[in-house]
Amino acid sequence: MNRILYGCAYYDEYMPEERLEKDMEMIRAAGMNVIRIAESTWATEEPQEGVFDFSHVTRTIEAAARHQISVIVGTPTYAIPPWLAARHPEVIAVTEQGKGKYGPRQNMDITDPHYLFYAERIIRKLLEAVRPYQNVIGFQLDNETKHYHVAGERVQQRFFTYLREKFGTVEAMNQAFGFAYWSNRVDSWDHLPDVTGTINGSYLAAFEAFRRQLVTDFLLWQRKIVDEYRRPDQFVTHNFDFAWHGFSYGVQPDVDHPRAAEALTIAGCDIYHPTQDDLTGKEIAFCGNLTRCLKRDNYLVLETEAQGFPEWTPYDGQLRLQAFSHLSSGADGVMYWHWHSLHNGCETYWKGLLSHDLKENRLYREARTIGRDLERIGEKLLHLHKRNRAAILVSNQALTAMGPWPLFGFPGNRRDYNDVVRAYADALFELNVEYDVIFPETADFSAYDLLIVPALYSASDELLQKLRQYAENGGVLLGAVKCGFTDEHVKVRHVEQPAFLHDCFGITYQEFTVPRKTALHADPDDFTEAKGLDEENSIHTWMELLQAGEADVLAHYVHPSWGKYAAVTQNRFGKGTAIYSGCLMHETWTKALCLHALKEAKIKAEDSDLYPVVVKCGVNQQGRMIRFYLNYSEKVQNVPYRYPDGEELLTDKQIRRQDVIALPPWGVRIIEAGQ
Amino acid sequence: MNRILYGCAYYDEYMPEERLEKDMEMIRAAGMNVIRIAESTWATEEPQEGVFDFSHVTRTIEAAARHQISVIVGTPTYAIPPWLAARHPEVIAVTEQGKGKYGPRQNMDITDPHYLFYAERIIRKLLEAVRPYQNVIGFQLDNETKHYHVAGERVQQRFFTYLREKFGTVEAMNQAFGFAYWSNRVDSWDHLPDVTGTINGSYLAAFEAFRRQLVTDFLLWQRKIVDEYRRPDQFVTHNFDFAWHGFSYGVQPDVDHPRAAEALTIAGCDIYHPTQDDLTGKEIAFCGNLTRCLKRDNYLVLETEAQGFPEWTPYDGQLRLQAFSHLSSGADGVMYWHWHSLHNGCETYWKGLLSHDLKENRLYREARTIGRDLERIGEKLLHLHKRNRAAILVSNQALTAMGPWPLFGFPGNRRDYNDVVRAYADALFELNVEYDVIFPETADFSAYDLLIVPALYSASDELLQKLRQYAENGGVLLGAVKCGFTDEHVKVRHVEQPAFLHDCFGITYQEFTVPRKTALHADPDDFTEAKGLDEENSIHTWMELLQAGEADVLAHYVHPSWGKYAAVTQNRFGKGTAIYSGCLMHETWTKALCLHALKEAKIKAEDSDLYPVVVKCGVNQQGRMIRFYLNYSEKVQNVPYRYPDGEELLTDKQIRRQDVIALPPWGVRIIEAGQ
Amino acid sequence: MNRILYGCAYYDEYMPEERLEKDMEMIRAAGMNVIRIAESTWATEEPQEGVFDFSHVTRTIEAAARHQISVIVGTPTYAIPPWLAARHPEVIAVTEQGKGKYGPRQNMDITDPHYLFYAERIIRKLLEAVRPYQNVIGFQLDNETKHYHVAGERVQQRFFTYLREKFGTVEAMNQAFGFAYWSNRVDSWDHLPDVTGTINGSYLAAFEAFRRQLVTDFLLWQRKIVDEYRRPDQFVTHNFDFAWHGFSYGVQPDVDHPRAAEALTIAGCDIYHPTQDDLTGKEIAFCGNLTRCLKRDNYLVLETEAQGFPEWTPYDGQLRLQAFSHLSSGADGVMYWHWHSLHNGCETYWKGLLSHDLKENRLYREARTIGRDLERIGEKLLHLHKRNRAAILVSNQALTAMGPWPLFGFPGNRRDYNDVVRAYADALFELNVEYDVIFPETADFSAYDLLIVPALYSASDELLQKLRQYAENGGVLLGAVKCGFTDEHVKVRHVEQPAFLHDCFGITYQEFTVPRKTALHADPDDFTEAKGLDEENSIHTWMELLQAGEADVLAHYVHPSWGKYAAVTQNRFGKGTAIYSGCLMHETWTKALCLHALKEAKIKAEDSDLYPVVVKCGVNQQGRMIRFYLNYSEKVQNVPYRYPDGEELLTDKQIRRQDVIALPPWGVRIIEAGQ
Repeated sequence: MNRILYGCAYYDEYMPEERLEKDMEMIRAAGMNVIRIAESTWATEEPQEGVFDFSHVTRTIEAAARHQISVIVGTPTYAIPPWLAARHPEVIAVTEQGKGKYGPRQNMDITDPHYLFYAERIIRKLLEAVRPYQNVIGFQLDNETKHYHVAGERVQQRFFTYLREKFGTVEAMNQAFGFAYWSNRVDSWDHLPDVTGTINGSYLAAFEAFRRQLVTDFLLWQRKIVDEYRRPDQFVTHNFDFAWHGFSYGVQPDVDHPRAAEALTIAGCDIYHPTQDDLTGKEIAFCGNLTRCLKRDNYLVLETEAQGFPEWTPYDGQLRLQAFSHLSSGADGVMYWHWHSLHNGCETYWKGLLSHDLKENRLYREARTIGRDLERIGEKLLHLHKRNRAAILVSNQALTAMGPWPLFGFPGNRRDYNDVVRAYADALFELNVEYDVIFPETADFSAYDLLIVPALYSASDELLQKLRQYAENGGVLLGAVKCGFTDEHVKVRHVEQPAFLHDCFGITYQEFTVPRKTALHADPDDFTEAKGLDEENSIHTWMELLQAGEADVLAHYVHPSWGKYAAVTQNRFGKGTAIYSGCLMHETWTKALCLHALKEAKIKAEDSDLYPVVVKCGVNQQGRMIRFYLNYSEKVQNVPYRYPDGEELLTDKQIRRQDVIALPPWGVRIIEAGQ
Repeated sequence: MNRILYGCAYYDEYMPEERLEKDMEMIRAAGMNVIRIAESTWATEEPQEGVFDFSHVTRTIEAAARHQISVIVGTPTYAIPPWLAARHPEVIAVTEQGKGKYGPRQNMDITDPHYLFYAERIIRKLLEAVRPYQNVIGFQLDNETKHYHVAGERVQQRFFTYLREKFGTVEAMNQAFGFAYWSNRVDSWDHLPDVTGTINGSYLAAFEAFRRQLVTDFLLWQRKIVDEYRRPDQFVTHNFDFAWHGFSYGVQPDVDHPRAAEALTIAGCDIYHPTQDDLTGKEIAFCGNLTRCLKRDNYLVLETEAQGFPEWTPYDGQLRLQAFSHLSSGADGVMYWHWHSLHNGCETYWKGLLSHDLKENRLYREARTIGRDLERIGEKLLHLHKRNRAAILVSNQALTAMGPWPLFGFPGNRRDYNDVVRAYADALFELNVEYDVIFPETADFSAYDLLIVPALYSASDELLQKLRQYAENGGVLLGAVKCGFTDEHVKVRHVEQPAFLHDCFGITYQEFTVPRKTALHADPDDFTEAKGLDEENSIHTWMELLQAGEADVLAHYVHPSWGKYAAVTQNRFGKGTAIYSGCLMHETWTKALCLHALKEAKIKAEDSDLYPVVVKCGVNQQGRMIRFYLNYSEKVQNVPYRYPDGEELLTDKQIRRQDVIALPPWGVRIIEAGQ
Repeated sequence: MNRILYGCAYYDEYMPEERLEKDMEMIRAAGMNVIRIAESTWATEEPQEGVFDFSHVTRTIEAAARHQISVIVGTPTYAIPPWLAARHPEVIAVTEQGKGKYGPRQNMDITDPHYLFYAERIIRKLLEAVRPYQNVIGFQLDNETKHYHVAGERVQQRFFTYLREKFGTVEAMNQAFGFAYWSNRVDSWDHLPDVTGTINGSYLAAFEAFRRQLVTDFLLWQRKIVDEYRRPDQFVTHNFDFAWHGFSYGVQPDVDHPRAAEALTIAGCDIYHPTQDDLTGKEIAFCGNLTRCLKRDNYLVLETEAQGFPEWTPYDGQLRLQAFSHLSSGADGVMYWHWHSLHNGCETYWKGLLSHDLKENRLYREARTIGRDLERIGEKLLHLHKRNRAAILVSNQALTAMGPWPLFGFPGNRRDYNDVVRAYADALFELNVEYDVIFPETADFSAYDLLIVPALYSASDELLQKLRQYAENGGVLLGAVKCGFTDEHVKVRHVEQPAFLHDCFGITYQEFTVPRKTALHADPDDFTEAKGLDEENSIHTWMELLQAGEADVLAHYVHPSWGKYAAVTQNRFGKGTAIYSGCLMHETWTKALCLHALKEAKIKAEDSDLYPVVVKCGVNQQGRMIRFYLNYSEKVQNVPYRYPDGEELLTDKQIRRQDVIALPPWGVRIIEAGQ
């Protein structure tokens, strides 16, 4: 690809009237250059079993070609036709909630042989149908694939086989899972109980890991099929999505993104987020950083909202700000879901770029400004390269291990693993320090000067060892609550906590509790940024009663009984530094701690005072530094430009170091300069 | 009927001791003249399959006759005997939640052949048993019949046949329902999926319409049987109920009231409402107005609470106020559910007129004052005729279409269609302007000078055309949010909104959102009543971004981004006026808008300043105007009498225009005068 | 037993490493003298069907013996092995929620013949295995046995037989249950409907009573087996638990404690309660008092938390305070659940005395101080005898009868029977007046000078008669809301309320409602303690509109409509006094009313002013009075000592009447003196 892909999902199949030519004209006129088609339209492509009709697909590709629009073709397998469910009811997944019903997408058993048979056939037929078209630039495998909580008997039998291969003997499994508890000890592989009834978190975590593997296997299987048909210049991608908290929020529990990404030539994802007064750019940054790190390369935002939910109707300027925010994270493409608003079905009120009247509207006109800007300056924004020195380590193993029973074991808590991750990610974001998101699988941690490890609740000895060595070799390691608390089987480690790392952090703890009326106090000399921090509500949800051994105490608890314990500590370990926070802190404190850690890591945070203006940057193919100034606020913002002289690309003006950049509400400026 | 029916439901079957003669004496002594019996007592009437025992029924009728009490006999089919469920388990309905269990009432499949067989037999036997009695004045078909969410396979097969007859081809249905979305496109009538799993609102809305038809069919079937037995002087009625929000609230989603009313000779209903500090008269007015309009005639309140729920125990005077409130809406009868409080079962704490001790109590004594007043003046209150010039158009098609997925698509919203309807109905109520409630089926809208159309989300072209013509021909049309947004199949119309009406209203809109920190501002010259309205919290839940074309702007939004859009508009269209509100407003604004619309329609609202005193009126058979002054407050209220000289019926005093009427707390006065 | 049992539950089976000898050393070093083992470890003891392995059990007993530690052996039947569920799926109970799944404990059908067969065999094998050991001092039958909501067809058939035996004819049952309502009348024992669908509270209450009997039968059956093996010096106990409101709260609905206790030689229970700022001692007192009264003797606290939930991590001193609080209620033993914190399973965050690192920690060190104190002074605290003059009558029949439908029939109410019981129990607790908890079965009420009867919603004529006679013969009877409202079949009595007692209380009422904006006003002359009580929020949830006949009015309602009704009354009846409260009052009022009733009963409440210091006492075997001063607060408390001169046992100091006792935060002092 030699240009930014800007476009939208397009469904000729869903149109209430003949619109194709008109739509292609409008799309092109908006400066868009790509559409994504075909995913989820199986029933139109194969209206009856064995009867194929790709006319909607081919006529769309042809119309696109007439308007110089490229096409990404999605395999249609994530929603099945009624005839398939009627003919093979077993295709509908049995989940923890029982047998599903036909109707929704993503309700099939992706391991069911009938499903796989028909899925393979439709994929092959589709790929044959689109093979002739030069403007098909790539393929998307399925869509937002997950395991859909499949938990039927056949799948559980496969899971039992997986366990057998993993453990060899039931006794090894009994031991690893602590099955003696409540008489769950198993005497034979034939007596493994239905995992959906279990009270054993290890058993459940193993099932989650097994099910994530099903997703990887499925995508690899589709990739293999696609490879039989695609040209070398055609890419293969997938639309990964994220933990959903009403919007794209955090690490996906149901897919091993780094492993599943092996099925792709370029990573892709969808990112949906609040807008209006709640547009912060944090989801765009977190999810984008994670996706970029999957293949350590640029990526595609295959879906993001245009209008989205009624409560997300963007303010003037927000659509622009969002598009450039994606690009500033290293995206090479931004595509809306979807072109038009649906007239039927459960996403009628999840609106596209056009409203239901299919006419030009305010948002279309704003998109057109983006398209035109990209035609002009897009080349300079393409293939941006990031050089981040800070990283956050995330683990969906830790996430699901914390899931089944409340780690933060008290009634009413709604926070989870991702909230801890996001607390640190968002603190860096507000400090204007860009970060990578890395994984237990990531080969080399030493590329980073600062490694933040939030709530790594379940981890193997090897991974903990790697963290230890990272610090020993000179890295700044910042751990937050529960790191290493359980092993890879979610068995609590019966050693001093933080397990494997207590000497690295220079602390130990035996107790933890839920803070009530507990504040933090920091010694200004140790933790200078903490001056003036409000002590009220300074921690929440969880506190470990840290006993500082070797470590210095950066902050301690303020409480009649817990005042003798440390809350945040720092230790010199080998050539490096190991910082640990035993509690969840108010965001002001989290920010202060991150700033402190950055200083220890000698990472400059020049623009840490600019939020809600956010600065993100990357080096383009011409070796020039591209800096985005993004105003996530409804107010005009005037901020200093602190870098080498350059040029503002959108307004085509020169800018000098120490000039003031004036950003309109929800505005964006892009400066090209030397590095 | 030549008298107001005043009475109660009576269940000899439920009595813990022999009480019949004692009860009839007490009922008669309270001035009551009617009891309603037999509904829900099937198991007592047919204790074993084929063994009949109507002794409770006949002895009650005979005892009533001895005390000059009339009897309404209900068919007992809304609760089935245990032996029927044991013998034919298929009688219990399968619903969206699965197979029901025996125990509750209203859990049967009203289309099940076994149910219908036994139901017909018990109805016939009962009608034979009561045929000899002259004091049986009428029959009630079943009770609060609904479809009970029947969704079993047999019923779905009938639904599929219904669709086939409606659409002819699957392709027509695919198109109408937009089944292409998410691969739901159907290739054959045999592959229609279980409707309970669908994500397609059109499919679901069609199922709701189909199920409402089942109710109509069932009542017509019962009517036909009853007609074989009844005397010409015996009426046939039914106890319609309303959407339940903890009390009778709004339009019933599960029954087509206007169609089902064809099975009756006189409309009937139950109205339950909060009391104590929450007694407002609004439910009595709304539900009464709706019921009166079903056959455009007087109606019976077959059930209303005496004591009701524990939290509804009435204050002194409220029982009287309630009774006269019903009569003021055009009711020809008021009956309590029920005479005594139940000693067993799940309505033990839904108390009747007598408490569990079956002795005279405070409420009985208050009921006795009502009975005595009605004996004296009831003749003047009978068959009151209303001449309302304002009407509200309601549609349970629109109601259920908005149901399955949140129209007001955001988390936490609990408001629905009925809240929009009630906002306008209650505004008129507080302005002391009486209204009719009309339906899409209503033949002629032109009888009204003002027609309010709230949230008519799903409507056919014909209906929208009728509304357009109404305005064109000189009516004042007041539309509120979402009118015409989808067609009769709940497909969003792909034209300018408000669909079919945008030139009528002189506006269009392409976007909508959820208001946050958004106020309204009205120009005093255009919308004079809005002066001094508080701008805080002035809208909620929903706002359309109206672009006024021809229309005048009555109010616009106050918001940094949405300030350029209109909120309320008015347009001259043909000979009439079309007003549109694109948002849900605080009740003060809704009232101001209604007052403005009334002025446009030249409807006087003389007593718009009197609330919480409410004035309702009608012309009696003697051609005299009867005006009720109802004090819905705990304070003494002194209000001006603004009409021709007349006589206060309860106190037997003369009253002259401009006299002050003094109303005690929760008090009532009834003035007879010339028109 | 000739010593206080102090110890913990111990599971060699769950240990992640070889720890036995080390643990026994640590246990003994902490002054502990008992462990409780084997319950819930069936799958370890019988790893395959018919293959037995008691090595964990015997090696633990032997290790304990080496350290002079006694052992209580629990039968392992409350959690079944996977092979049993696999072989006999019918063992897993069908409940109101349907068929259970293998995984949790306590999910079996305790009446299932397969379960009973295998349970008997494992019990016998275990008892044989432990027979040789002298340090086994007693047995625990099963654990926290309940009926687990078993409601499958076989159990319902047994229930139907139970009904048939109880009523003889269906007509008698129809009458007793009021089955005529909603056509539920039954014509044959064969047509009794599935009780899980019923809307009849009488039918449901009968089922609850039947299911409670299953628990009694089960424990008696185990007792009989154990008796075949045990030595005369070995006791038999059971771990009763309580209604769970997130902690041990009130009367257990699912077990008839007094009846089930017949299977035991000594009563036992578990008591779990909040700590930190919420540690009040109220649960320890209520549950302890109840357990003590089961056999009218000392009892064992077989389980209580060490660390418990994360939010319960005790403050310094609380573990000590808790232990002595148990002993002060008459416990002869206190055992923690459990020794170590679990490394797997759903109670990983329900921590034991040791943390997961299995090392000495803060709590262990505090437990050691308790152990050492008990070694020194335990003999003086053993077999304390209580002489309480006040009692509270509780009934799980009343509790479950109020359950199925809201007695306090309004939306949003979450209070239940136990909240009424606890309101009075906690008032006495705060007044420093100890009380017994008695039952309908309790033979003689006349032992008490004050009998409090909260919400006795369902009661037989005989029980009400007994209460009447209690007052008539000179007792002070204090009734609170709903007493006698329904009979033993939960049929509301159709007589004047309070049924059978209205002349005893000198009042009657016909109406009740939910208070809103309703205060209380007391006449200082009648109810002197009420002076200065805040009238705001003084009642909640429920109010009966009392009409005082003979009775004096102690307090009346303050409300425009309800002001004419009495709220609290007092009547001279025979030689006694009958006080009645018709409403639920703010705790300040409840305390005032209790103090008034104590005065009437001539029960001194010398220390009614000391709370949060609580004084509890008993006479030890040497005939000496032992008084515990328990400081349930984080502040130092200085309180007067008002009793004969004595000796403080923990500090070994003399104390004289009127001396001041200084209690540290969460501190305890124990004074031995003459009576």
